[in-house]
Amino acid sequence: MIAVTILGNNSAVPAHNRHPTAQVLQTAEHFVLIDCGEGTQMQMRQYKIRKSRINHIFISHLHGDHYFGLVGLLNTFALNHRTNDLHIYAPAKLKSIIEIQMEVTETRFPYQLLFHNLEKEEILFDDKTLSVECFKVNHRIECWGFLFREKKNLRKIIPQQTKKYNVPQSFYEQLHKGLDFINEHNQVIKNEILTVAVEPPKSYAYCADTAFYDPIAEKIHGVDLVYHESTYLDELSQKAGERFHSTSRQAAMIAAKAGAKKLLLGHFSSMYENLDEFKTEAQSTFENTEIAEEGVCYLA
Amino acid sequence: MIAVTILGNNSAVPAHNRHPTAQVLQTAEHFVLIDCGEGTQMQMRQYKIRKSRINHIFISHLHGDHYFGLVGLLNTFALNHRTNDLHIYAPAKLKSIIEIQMEVTETRFPYQLLFHNLEKEEILFDDKTLSVECFKVNHRIECWGFLFREKKNLRKIIPQQTKKYNVPQSFYEQLHKGLDFINEHNQVIKNEILTVAVEPPKSYAYCADTAFYDPIAEKIHGVDLVYHESTYLDELSQKAGERFHSTSRQAAMIAAKAGAKKLLLGHFSSMYENLDEFKTEAQSTFENTEIAEEGVCYLA
Repeated sequence: MIAVTILGNNSAVPAHNRHPTAQVLQTAEHFVLIDCGEGTQMQMRQYKIRKSRINHIFISHLHGDHYFGLVGLLNTFALNHRTNDLHIYAPAKLKSIIEIQMEVTETRFPYQLLFHNLEKEEILFDDKTLSVECFKVNHRIECWGFLFREKKNLRKIIPQQTKKYNVPQSFYEQLHKGLDFINEHNQVIKNEILTVAVEPPKSYAYCADTAFYDPIAEKIHGVDLVYHESTYLDELSQKAGERFHSTSRQAAMIAAKAGAKKLLLGHFSSMYENLDEFKTEAQSTFENTEIAEEGVCYLA
Repeated sequence: MIAVTILGNNSAVPAHNRHPTAQVLQTAEHFVLIDCGEGTQMQMRQYKIRKSRINHIFISHLHGDHYFGLVGLLNTFALNHRTNDLHIYAPAKLKSIIEIQMEVTETRFPYQLLFHNLEKEEILFDDKTLSVECFKVNHRIECWGFLFREKKNLRKIIPQQTKKYNVPQSFYEQLHKGLDFINEHNQVIKNEILTVAVEPPKSYAYCADTAFYDPIAEKIHGVDLVYHESTYLDELSQKAGERFHSTSRQAAMIAAKAGAKKLLLGHFSSMYENLDEFKTEAQSTFENTEIAEEGVCYLA
């Protein structure tokens, strides 16, 4: 399961008690931050996010509303005596922006800060349970989307049953994979007796900030949950295009073309106080749409 | 009159819904920001501060909790189409920190940003109604206090009276200064008949962050309102000293020695949720003490 908590759903200028972009993504094994606008650490406190568990931060691009909260968060980690490595995946220039600010305080963080530059579409992170890849989107400056995919989950062993049927621990790996067990009397014990299925792996695509950009749909095809920016309503589609942003209808078109299961809309312009129309407009193209509300956790 | 609105009263790590340091100072003529921790622009929105009126920003030092909100505020000014010049008084390195972040977005602000480096104790700003000078405090890195002094206010003309006694406009400047008017019949019209007194000029001293540092008292002698940091209670005076911070008792000692009229305490450590004891402790040395509460406007 992938759970995404929205910490900020507004575009550049904070307004209507909405904050600049930041999201926390959680799986059973991982705790990840996506973008980090100003005030993200306050929003984490507000919504009881255990920030010390974050080991990976993904920054889509270097417009301030997506990273101005980062240096404050890194400092707070230091003041909280963090020692765990912290990985940051971001456009190359972020490293010097952070380093110049560390230099003036003449301090070193008590943890390792590992920068990974986004340079081409590739897999950024890959372990037994999760992979993360970046893909190009179409914004005024270099900007990346991120696709999070859980790995196929292994079947779960039922301890009472493996004990009852005398299955040796050495066979557990095969059990996890779904194989039947054949005992010393050549009896076949069906895997279903010894294990239970766990839920299928999920995927989440983060697409911000971007103009309407068709290739995204192919890149994230079949995704369970897609977050797509929707700065404007469709009546301002020309303005959206000029500013390399999208409308809610365009976000819905990407979700539909990608065959996504669910769409989350965010990055709303401060000109809109009420957001209802974003949902209505998108739903005429893609039914399963929700507004990304701050403090709310959405499941893929 | 000088009015100071507190936007943040906490030290480095935001906690207990308290924010990092920022204050807005207003006089009849000026609107000034002192320090700008992360989230300052959100706090301005929260407390209905008309930020477009700010033309001067004073940054005491480059620890993040005193300036991490600045780049976001500058961006918001740009997005709001600000055109007025903006003056920033700060340690020299702030300029490169801001510029590197402007470069990555490949944009120019639509207004002039004028940096004034803090290098020695001097008058930073001086006009008909206000002067601002900086003075050294004692912190781990280069850090400055600021002293705001209103100029002597001129007496105010009563238009009905100057009309009644036929005082020519050419004599108004003398009237403002308190001179009597002698008319063509050699009659003396007392100034008190033609003008009213306005309130005496006020002064405000901002002293943060600093260890207990005696010379401050002399520098700000006779000030009406002094804000002095008080990160810890006096039982942690050793810790305070090691970290170049002050206790509330030490802040009170400075206020007393300076002959200040009133003391504001702030920059509280996140280890304290309740702040009552700061006030009680300081009051045993300096009676007229208040806790700098966020959103509250204090008058000098």
